[in-house]
Amino acid sequence: MAKRLGRQTVRLERPPVVLSYAAVGGKKEGEGPLKRGFDFLSEDSYFGEASWEKAESRMLKQCFQLACEKGGLPSASLDYVFAGDLLNQCVSSAFAMKDSALPYFGLYGACSTMAEGLSLAALLLDGGAAGRCCALTGSHFCSAERQYRFPLEYGGQRTPTSQWTVTGAGAVILGRGGTGIRLTHVTTGRIVDAGVADATHMGGAMAPAALDTLTAHFRETGRRPEDYDAIFTGDLGVLGHDILEDLLHNQGFELGVRYMDCGVLIYDRSAQDVGAGGSGCGCCASVLGAQILPGMEKGLWNRVLFAATGALMSPTSSQQGESIPGICHAVALERTE
Amino acid sequence: MAKRLGRQTVRLERPPVVLSYAAVGGKKEGEGPLKRGFDFLSEDSYFGEASWEKAESRMLKQCFQLACEKGGLPSASLDYVFAGDLLNQCVSSAFAMKDSALPYFGLYGACSTMAEGLSLAALLLDGGAAGRCCALTGSHFCSAERQYRFPLEYGGQRTPTSQWTVTGAGAVILGRGGTGIRLTHVTTGRIVDAGVADATHMGGAMAPAALDTLTAHFRETGRRPEDYDAIFTGDLGVLGHDILEDLLHNQGFELGVRYMDCGVLIYDRSAQDVGAGGSGCGCCASVLGAQILPGMEKGLWNRVLFAATGALMSPTSSQQGESIPGICHAVALERTE
Repeated sequence: MAKRLGRQTVRLERPPVVLSYAAVGGKKEGEGPLKRGFDFLSEDSYFGEASWEKAESRMLKQCFQLACEKGGLPSASLDYVFAGDLLNQCVSSAFAMKDSALPYFGLYGACSTMAEGLSLAALLLDGGAAGRCCALTGSHFCSAERQYRFPLEYGGQRTPTSQWTVTGAGAVILGRGGTGIRLTHVTTGRIVDAGVADATHMGGAMAPAALDTLTAHFRETGRRPEDYDAIFTGDLGVLGHDILEDLLHNQGFELGVRYMDCGVLIYDRSAQDVGAGGSGCGCCASVLGAQILPGMEKGLWNRVLFAATGALMSPTSSQQGESIPGICHAVALERTE
Repeated sequence: MAKRLGRQTVRLERPPVVLSYAAVGGKKEGEGPLKRGFDFLSEDSYFGEASWEKAESRMLKQCFQLACEKGGLPSASLDYVFAGDLLNQCVSSAFAMKDSALPYFGLYGACSTMAEGLSLAALLLDGGAAGRCCALTGSHFCSAERQYRFPLEYGGQRTPTSQWTVTGAGAVILGRGGTGIRLTHVTTGRIVDAGVADATHMGGAMAPAALDTLTAHFRETGRRPEDYDAIFTGDLGVLGHDILEDLLHNQGFELGVRYMDCGVLIYDRSAQDVGAGGSGCGCCASVLGAQILPGMEKGLWNRVLFAATGALMSPTSSQQGESIPGICHAVALERTE
């Protein structure tokens, strides 16, 4: 049975294992530093579909199928799928999974969705309600731009603080017991609103949520940053990355070189015009599948903290003058032989 | 430990108990047949706020607080909140809970959200990861109209098949063990797309999903409709109600008088201009708190199946010619002395 270590953290007594995973990206992601880690990169931003929304859905479906295929796991062997995305009413996930015939839990965690899905999947597996679960999410630059910001045709200028929504998806299939990469701890985020109202500076809006979750994780587990080989946030970008480092420093935690942000890793900011870095549900989800899990399998890191951040706002809430509440869900991953 | 009875149903070995609940409604809901069951009815569609979106958020917050107060449960005693709504990016739930300092799982299940939240809360409680959880959801007629359909000022005509989005919210707090109303089974929905593309006929689009989940529930538990004192769907409206009866009849199941739909119950269709009945996350959530749970406490029904349906579409998916996928999550409730 899971053991609650504190208000936010649960230690799993029978930690689920990563059975398989996949990452899919678009053209720009295929020109970035992580290109070799993706299972599929599309040259076509429409993924062969007639609209960007349908493209996003196709991409998610493909990513899910790749994760099943890579693990030799028939999709019918899964007990639950946890999925969500950034589109209004999360349609890309729903349409991606509508022919799967799998029990489906729809999530909305904004860019924290991958960690939210992994958390719930792990808690159900540990509790015995499931034997295999998939966490799936993604985002698409073009569908997100026209929904959250401006139609692409408008050609709006971007601020230096703005982040680039990743066209990408990630899928992770967890199973009960076994060896490999295990998910050992779940630290569930609380909503944190530091009063930032600038919708072009998401890293600044979300860093306080990451601070809240990481300090809760360290406090409740008794661990320190140095107990991890790597700590990944997603997706604060370069500005949020530095803000979080400063905020944690003020609380007595030094993250050091082990700390990386998925929004920083996915693009080459000197060569790719992406502002402060990547964002979107698909950012940390695809970095998890293209970089973090492969790196753990290669032995680059044995113990990893994966902390995904989300901004829980909408264009309407911003237009009505509301600030941007953030959330951060974290899971600890550990490789065993 | 939970026992899987089949592909979709889990029987909880330590069934969680309903510790408290609340229902909040608006003016129209206060003129309907369930008015006496609500804990609070607002005469003001703005709930004292400056916009309908903020009103929806205020209503959710109030409903959550009422559930805590009625049960004498400090909100800090909760381990997780599961919440979601119909607004883009689920902002009303996020803003309602942003000052709660509670670990938060955001859901998107459209009008099935209450049953989705109850399902996940129950699975976590049964698995030992939590001691107390809240499932919270709601909807607001005015915010939903302008987002999904037309601005209210436009005065668009409604089809007879259309449903009226309930201004209402429901909150249920579940705890581990004990007596009272227990949640004994969770049947998780699969996405079912029967090809209905008429966004003004949600009952028809969602009835096939309810069919799928109810037949799975009966098959996997070995139960029949007559094993329940009452079966509630939400929110199919009068047309969806009759369609589901027919579909189940064709499969050999007679629901009979024990079958009611929350969208039918909440309004008096002869006196209130609501088309085919109520809909929205807040419909079955508030009927659960205003009618079903109080009825169980009074001994009117001892064994209830609560099956909430959701339409997983968006205005964009409809505009792009997609059909409307539905989902239905069901939970079995049982009163013990």
